[in-house]
Amino acid sequence: MNPSLQRDDLAKGTFSKYRTALHVEYDGTDFSGFQIQNNARTVQQMLEKAVTQVYGTSCRIFGCSRTDAGVHARKHVSHVDLPFCIPSEKIPLALNVHLPDDVVVIAAKEVPSDFHARFRCKGKKYIYRVSDQNRRPSIDRRFVAHIPKQLQIQWMQEAAKYMIGKYDFSAFCASEGLTKDTVRDVWDVAVCRNMATDYVEISVSGASFLYNMVRIMAGTLIYVGQGKIDALNISDIIQKKQRNLAGKTMPANGLMLENVYFEPEIFPD
Amino acid sequence: MNPSLQRDDLAKGTFSKYRTALHVEYDGTDFSGFQIQNNARTVQQMLEKAVTQVYGTSCRIFGCSRTDAGVHARKHVSHVDLPFCIPSEKIPLALNVHLPDDVVVIAAKEVPSDFHARFRCKGKKYIYRVSDQNRRPSIDRRFVAHIPKQLQIQWMQEAAKYMIGKYDFSAFCASEGLTKDTVRDVWDVAVCRNMATDYVEISVSGASFLYNMVRIMAGTLIYVGQGKIDALNISDIIQKKQRNLAGKTMPANGLMLENVYFEPEIFPD
Repeated sequence: MNPSLQRDDLAKGTFSKYRTALHVEYDGTDFSGFQIQNNARTVQQMLEKAVTQVYGTSCRIFGCSRTDAGVHARKHVSHVDLPFCIPSEKIPLALNVHLPDDVVVIAAKEVPSDFHARFRCKGKKYIYRVSDQNRRPSIDRRFVAHIPKQLQIQWMQEAAKYMIGKYDFSAFCASEGLTKDTVRDVWDVAVCRNMATDYVEISVSGASFLYNMVRIMAGTLIYVGQGKIDALNISDIIQKKQRNLAGKTMPANGLMLENVYFEPEIFPD
Repeated sequence: MNPSLQRDDLAKGTFSKYRTALHVEYDGTDFSGFQIQNNARTVQQMLEKAVTQVYGTSCRIFGCSRTDAGVHARKHVSHVDLPFCIPSEKIPLALNVHLPDDVVVIAAKEVPSDFHARFRCKGKKYIYRVSDQNRRPSIDRRFVAHIPKQLQIQWMQEAAKYMIGKYDFSAFCASEGLTKDTVRDVWDVAVCRNMATDYVEISVSGASFLYNMVRIMAGTLIYVGQGKIDALNISDIIQKKQRNLAGKTMPANGLMLENVYFEPEIFPD
């Protein structure tokens, strides 16, 4: 096989032999996000390095989602076209040896040649975790943000309802991320206090999200929980499309990509 | 007040003004244990530094327990004699500003002048966490050990019963930690699979423990779960007092000091 031809095909994402989906988990703390960048440590870079070490050739990884620097994932799905066949169940073991300890391939599965991790992804579920106790968390500090005053959960639950639906979410988008189409379909927003950890968990699921959207939604709900924004004003904030009316962008560490959805499901829970 | 006199009194632990108990939580990953050592980063050192910064004078911290390098604590209790009065509820806030992000004071409480964190401690509860899945954990790697093959929980549960009681636990002590009295009272040993995380949790509580004892008990129970040691042999291992008959010392990262007990309780859950 002509290696340069193969690389071209890989770059186009059209190379069809041994297309494989990877379920990847990572602690985003020390990563500059998922996507490869110059002079930055990224998850994609680590995965591509590991694939090169196992398969002896460089293969492009296509992720279902970039995640921002510092954001974590319990379930991130990528696809890659592999040059030869290793049984799916052996692939995680082979790759994990070459991956640093903050990223791990949980499962691999051969998928049809037209599968695409990004374009076939039907939706995602994120959870934003925040401790609203007086004292900051230490053991869980990498995965939980901190607001040093108790939040009014019921106000946040009320506000969350107004965020569900298909709306123009410009007010919940970082200015540098504004695109032509700012309409997004949010399936569910739920707020609860985890009884085991006492952390407040803000779950957001939807088809796709704007840049920083979930972190701004979390920041807005936290403002509601602090009494800085009234729950009844959420619809108005959405309609006015003004970023400055919404809450602040919460730090990346509290955000976890919990699940990504495909039809049919590739890696059922 | 003569400062050198005060220091002497502090060293003896007899200085009685504003004796205060501290509930401390820490991520032990980057600590060389609790107790102060030369050229090592320890929790006690960080606490004493913070006290010095807040109170302007050095005060000795007395911990309920050293913990080994890499071992974590959700609840560790210390006492300290403070030179002047700050209301108890303000002390955590004042100290936490001066503590690194992997240690936090959760609560402080003024205690009687004859209270001693170590000598008044009635017992401790540890949990050892291990993932027995094929793939190593990444997000939880700092707090969960890894055995890449499924453990037989019911064998471990059977074996755990034989570890409960007042015995000479020499077989479960690192040789460098052997003292004259190697009899320890183990109140409870329980093994379960946490349904939320799928990790195996080995809980051990007792009055006190020998050096590395909980990590060797965990290693022995894991050998039982792997079929390398028969549950029925545990009593025999205890009776023979030979370290080489027990399992290996499990790594520190899986061990968490979950609770410490006092009568009356200083920091109720």
